[in-house]
Amino acid sequence: MSENPLRLLMNPRSVAVVGASNDFRKMGTIQALSILKDGYSGEVCFIHRKEKTVLGRPAFPMAAALPHAPDLAVLIVPSSSIANLLEDFGRIGTKRAIVITAGFKETGSAGRSMEEKIRSVARRHGIRFVGPNCLGIINSENLLNTTVAPFTTGPGRLGFASQSGTYVTQVLPYLRKNGIRFSKAISLGNEADIDLVDALEYLGEDEQTRAVILYIEGIRDGRRFVEAARRITPHKPVVAQYVGGSASGARAGASHTGAMAGPDFLYDGIFRQAGILRVPTIEDLYAHGWTLATQPPLRGGRVGIVTNSGGPGTAIAYTCDQAGLEVPRFSEKLQRDIRPMIEAHASAANPVDLTFDLGIQKLAVTLPEMIMKSGEVDAMILHGVMHSGFMVEIFDHLRDYLKGVSCDAFLKGTRSVEEDAFQLPGKYPLPFLISSFFDDTDDCTRGYLDAGVPVFRSPENAARALGSLHRYRLVRERVLSAAPLLPEAQSAALEILQRAKAEGRGALDEYEAKQVLTAYGVPVTREEKAANREDAVEAAQRIRYPVAVKACSWEILHKSGGGLIALHLENAAQVKEAFDGIQKAAGKPTPVLVQEMVSGNREFLVGMTRFPGFAPCVVFGLGGVWTEIHRDMTLRQAPLSDTDAAEMPADLRSSRLLGEYRGLPEVKTGALSLILQAVGTIALLHPEIAEIDINPVMIRGADPVAADALMILEVEG
Amino acid sequence: MSENPLRLLMNPRSVAVVGASNDFRKMGTIQALSILKDGYSGEVCFIHRKEKTVLGRPAFPMAAALPHAPDLAVLIVPSSSIANLLEDFGRIGTKRAIVITAGFKETGSAGRSMEEKIRSVARRHGIRFVGPNCLGIINSENLLNTTVAPFTTGPGRLGFASQSGTYVTQVLPYLRKNGIRFSKAISLGNEADIDLVDALEYLGEDEQTRAVILYIEGIRDGRRFVEAARRITPHKPVVAQYVGGSASGARAGASHTGAMAGPDFLYDGIFRQAGILRVPTIEDLYAHGWTLATQPPLRGGRVGIVTNSGGPGTAIAYTCDQAGLEVPRFSEKLQRDIRPMIEAHASAANPVDLTFDLGIQKLAVTLPEMIMKSGEVDAMILHGVMHSGFMVEIFDHLRDYLKGVSCDAFLKGTRSVEEDAFQLPGKYPLPFLISSFFDDTDDCTRGYLDAGVPVFRSPENAARALGSLHRYRLVRERVLSAAPLLPEAQSAALEILQRAKAEGRGALDEYEAKQVLTAYGVPVTREEKAANREDAVEAAQRIRYPVAVKACSWEILHKSGGGLIALHLENAAQVKEAFDGIQKAAGKPTPVLVQEMVSGNREFLVGMTRFPGFAPCVVFGLGGVWTEIHRDMTLRQAPLSDTDAAEMPADLRSSRLLGEYRGLPEVKTGALSLILQAVGTIALLHPEIAEIDINPVMIRGADPVAADALMILEVEG
Repeated sequence: MSENPLRLLMNPRSVAVVGASNDFRKMGTIQALSILKDGYSGEVCFIHRKEKTVLGRPAFPMAAALPHAPDLAVLIVPSSSIANLLEDFGRIGTKRAIVITAGFKETGSAGRSMEEKIRSVARRHGIRFVGPNCLGIINSENLLNTTVAPFTTGPGRLGFASQSGTYVTQVLPYLRKNGIRFSKAISLGNEADIDLVDALEYLGEDEQTRAVILYIEGIRDGRRFVEAARRITPHKPVVAQYVGGSASGARAGASHTGAMAGPDFLYDGIFRQAGILRVPTIEDLYAHGWTLATQPPLRGGRVGIVTNSGGPGTAIAYTCDQAGLEVPRFSEKLQRDIRPMIEAHASAANPVDLTFDLGIQKLAVTLPEMIMKSGEVDAMILHGVMHSGFMVEIFDHLRDYLKGVSCDAFLKGTRSVEEDAFQLPGKYPLPFLISSFFDDTDDCTRGYLDAGVPVFRSPENAARALGSLHRYRLVRERVLSAAPLLPEAQSAALEILQRAKAEGRGALDEYEAKQVLTAYGVPVTREEKAANREDAVEAAQRIRYPVAVKACSWEILHKSGGGLIALHLENAAQVKEAFDGIQKAAGKPTPVLVQEMVSGNREFLVGMTRFPGFAPCVVFGLGGVWTEIHRDMTLRQAPLSDTDAAEMPADLRSSRLLGEYRGLPEVKTGALSLILQAVGTIALLHPEIAEIDINPVMIRGADPVAADALMILEVEG
Repeated sequence: MSENPLRLLMNPRSVAVVGASNDFRKMGTIQALSILKDGYSGEVCFIHRKEKTVLGRPAFPMAAALPHAPDLAVLIVPSSSIANLLEDFGRIGTKRAIVITAGFKETGSAGRSMEEKIRSVARRHGIRFVGPNCLGIINSENLLNTTVAPFTTGPGRLGFASQSGTYVTQVLPYLRKNGIRFSKAISLGNEADIDLVDALEYLGEDEQTRAVILYIEGIRDGRRFVEAARRITPHKPVVAQYVGGSASGARAGASHTGAMAGPDFLYDGIFRQAGILRVPTIEDLYAHGWTLATQPPLRGGRVGIVTNSGGPGTAIAYTCDQAGLEVPRFSEKLQRDIRPMIEAHASAANPVDLTFDLGIQKLAVTLPEMIMKSGEVDAMILHGVMHSGFMVEIFDHLRDYLKGVSCDAFLKGTRSVEEDAFQLPGKYPLPFLISSFFDDTDDCTRGYLDAGVPVFRSPENAARALGSLHRYRLVRERVLSAAPLLPEAQSAALEILQRAKAEGRGALDEYEAKQVLTAYGVPVTREEKAANREDAVEAAQRIRYPVAVKACSWEILHKSGGGLIALHLENAAQVKEAFDGIQKAAGKPTPVLVQEMVSGNREFLVGMTRFPGFAPCVVFGLGGVWTEIHRDMTLRQAPLSDTDAAEMPADLRSSRLLGEYRGLPEVKTGALSLILQAVGTIALLHPEIAEIDINPVMIRGADPVAADALMILEVEG
């Protein structure tokens, strides 16, 4: 694998900035200040047509005037100048750039061709660049920050690749107050060159980064994305927020970075396949990412809760339960140990509820340590550790009675926790999270934040973050298999498709579609095509009654309704009648398919669809009439590994239908997986198939069998 | 209706506190300070056995020594003293009390009898009280605060009844920082006397209160709760958080207030019936409540978004879409008006994205006003209005270049918004919400908070709160009908039930259960009971083939599997064979039910179950084999009004199944509603029926018909 282009871009020995001046109201100046002031120790110089110095540093009139080529050029000038600037830097040998400037493909066709131009200039000179239309990067190791906001938190463990600039820079004060510290952050912009996958791979390899978060409005290359993520997620958690999968959301996204937005359902499937944890909000993205970056892996689902009030304890327990975690009742022995520490009316069972108690050391240290030592939990959540945040409030009431005592003196005289409280979480190899209504102005909250312990403003959020640790545990523990090698295309399938293409058809008929399926090992119903009444009856005798008779023509895509299908036929007379009925309904001589009846109400759908930018996607869901009613489906990109094919059925809300129930045997999910993989293979080998719809896949005994199939062909444009 | 006991309790002319001293580490003292220091202007005195003065006020050795009876007694003494104290206050004529003390029924049987005792003492003296095991009340009108934390926010519009004390008091600093102000807040504790429903009714009537929030761990009287809420929700929004509906959550709740916890599903149904908006977290409870308390009603679903960066705009649009709101593309005219205000590369369509721009007045005033005036939106969300929060960060970088300029001077020299920005939301009758990553230390955020404009720390949370306004719009617009009058009990039903009771049976057989249903107008399948082969055949001929034959015995609750049921029988021979098979499978002579076959795959369940503390509950859901697979059900308490019965089918995730689809007619939901109401009626008239299970209700044509029915009887203990 070639070296990731971000490695040099994030670690330049020298940076040239074009677009900064001595006017502090200009964005370029503000960004230059971040480079100068946040501790970056490499060489920084400026290009400015008129000024001799910018921000106290020498300025040069053009790139060619520089004493030597900088490793990185940061460009914050009008979009029309970017191509020439890249040309200049290319000539002197600069190999990396960040193009901050907006006004490219997100604005329409003129911008698009300007973007195409800068890309070709860059390629010619071997320049790799981030942007355009971005806010650049933050590297907490060398303290290089090209964004508009000062970077003040110091080095952290959370790597971020973002399709929104704001989320990398305007949030920095918010992140500081929440104790969240980036290792590296990259605002990707339009991704004309370096893209989301490059950034993901870079953060995946980066040793400083312990967890990766992604803000995504659109993935351009689904196959590369999933491949990269799957290499990373087994050993480093990746969390993503995706927005854009709705009518209104998609439009906003498109006008923002010109990203290709796809439906929610597609991204859900892709993230599952990649082992990426999806979260619904930007706050969760930071907080769950930070939790994963700082906490030891969760090794089981048992959560211990200590609280100084019942409501938050109950809410944490309830939310843990909903996240698939467990709040076990402590053993009698552990409860006996806890009992003397708490009020008689308080609960020792878990949650341990101290009730209102200013003896905060018990809450922060004594009880959690007792519980962690017991081995009865895999994670701890504490609610209510606080001191100055509350005491400052109380002081206001006490002021008159404590004449002459200052607030500071009062705080010193009241009990806070000992310093060991903030070290406790590091002493045991368990995740340890704090819930508090007090923010970083409270000395306890501050102590935890400084020690890298995640603090949540609400009980539920602490529990939900623990839920992400639990989800990551399942990702870490899953056994990933490689996708099977793609077989040769089958000649039977090729012939059918070539014939259809030659005839200029938009689809295969059901018989042909099933022959293609059969060629790749998909079990289909026993069936024969018949062009007249007598052939139909003979076919029915061979297949054995009861049979179904269906119109078989590529022009008839949907046979339900309209008299084009007859089911449960028991004898020759019924078959003849059905044949005649279909001829009448079709309005012209139409061959029929005579087919075995498969009964039962376990019907599934296996399908294939293509999204621009993604490999063909295989869909599995509830079938038959239930497809539209329940919309219970899941998706994976082809090729499907054994892991993918095995995980799809479990994704369904109604996956119980696959188990043994009401006297029906458990469905052979191995056979189902083979069908899913075969459909992926067909899609990859036969790009002329635009869509596949096998609906229903019936369950005959325990075996899935394709009872109907539709293949739509690409219409040449 | 009698006067609500909280009216006097919240508005006493005088308060006596028992349990405060001059020791500032005692909870009683801290609470007394809240009463003395937060502005309450009524008379305050203390009872103390030894001290002559407490906190500078005269103290009396006992209630009898008081110059006159206080309107309210606040008791913060050991639990064993409470009964005597109530006796003392009762004797002097005090009629209201707050019992803060814990250690009652939540601790077990000794506590339970102590609680019983204080209740009987209070009743004897006509004392109404809040608690025990609570933190008391806050009234922002008369500034009476009995809780442990100072009340510093001033009067607000949000009323709160809470089954957790912390959420009334420890959160006060958190609420202040978020600009959220209570009108009245009540910590309910064990509800030995004044309960959740009293508090709900009080807040419903309170004119200062514009929206009510409830933190609930358990409802004790479901019928009163729903009745009270339904009177309030059409004109005043009520939001609730319920925790407790899980194994672990329930245990935490029980040990906290000894509340009766019920399953999640029960509470979901109760809240829907009551028109209460359920939220999943305490932060949502406050924030959505505050939004409802301060914002004008939403009159349509169209949201306008103005942002200074794309990511948050996209996230708001996406989240609005998921909440059932719409982010319409602005008209060409409006876009033309907006265009000159923004950068060429920015979007004018909605969200309007200014991109990074320090000209904050456009973002805060010019653009939103233009959009609100256009009439094209029903609500506004702004992201990115900020000034000092960001500028203070930047100042750090500029310090060296602005020698001698202080941060304050710098802030004054940079543009913030004009004061009119904070008044803008009040000028138009639309909800107006702010999303910002800057907290109350930013001058813009502070300005909005002070003006009562809700500010959210994340884009998604702003959109989700707007979602609650949308949900409340649906509640406000629904037409509530009264429950139909309960009819007389039907003699046919009474006879069947009496006979079963006399025989000591635990259930009715299917035939009897359907006769009970028939007596109340529920359509059932045509069927006859037959005790021998010949009767069965004759019955089948009358009913007409095809028929089903089923074992009919109260001891056989579930007939599927085990050869006790035969379907699709076409002739006499098959009926005879089925009859014999059933005899064999049952192992003893067993009558059968010969029944018409109703075919089709639209199967529903109508059921009835009883939860302690609630009226009987009617359940509607997917039926047949789908009940366990999809777990798609909803619930209402009986009696069901027409509104309830009409709303239940729409609650199902799979409600599309009731519409016209695949050639099947739309189900007659009116007929379905009558079945739901009838089941409620049966449950109310016949308390000896413990559970009802009509599964499946099949759809014959468009009409629902009960195809199987089970009624379980109460077993006398």
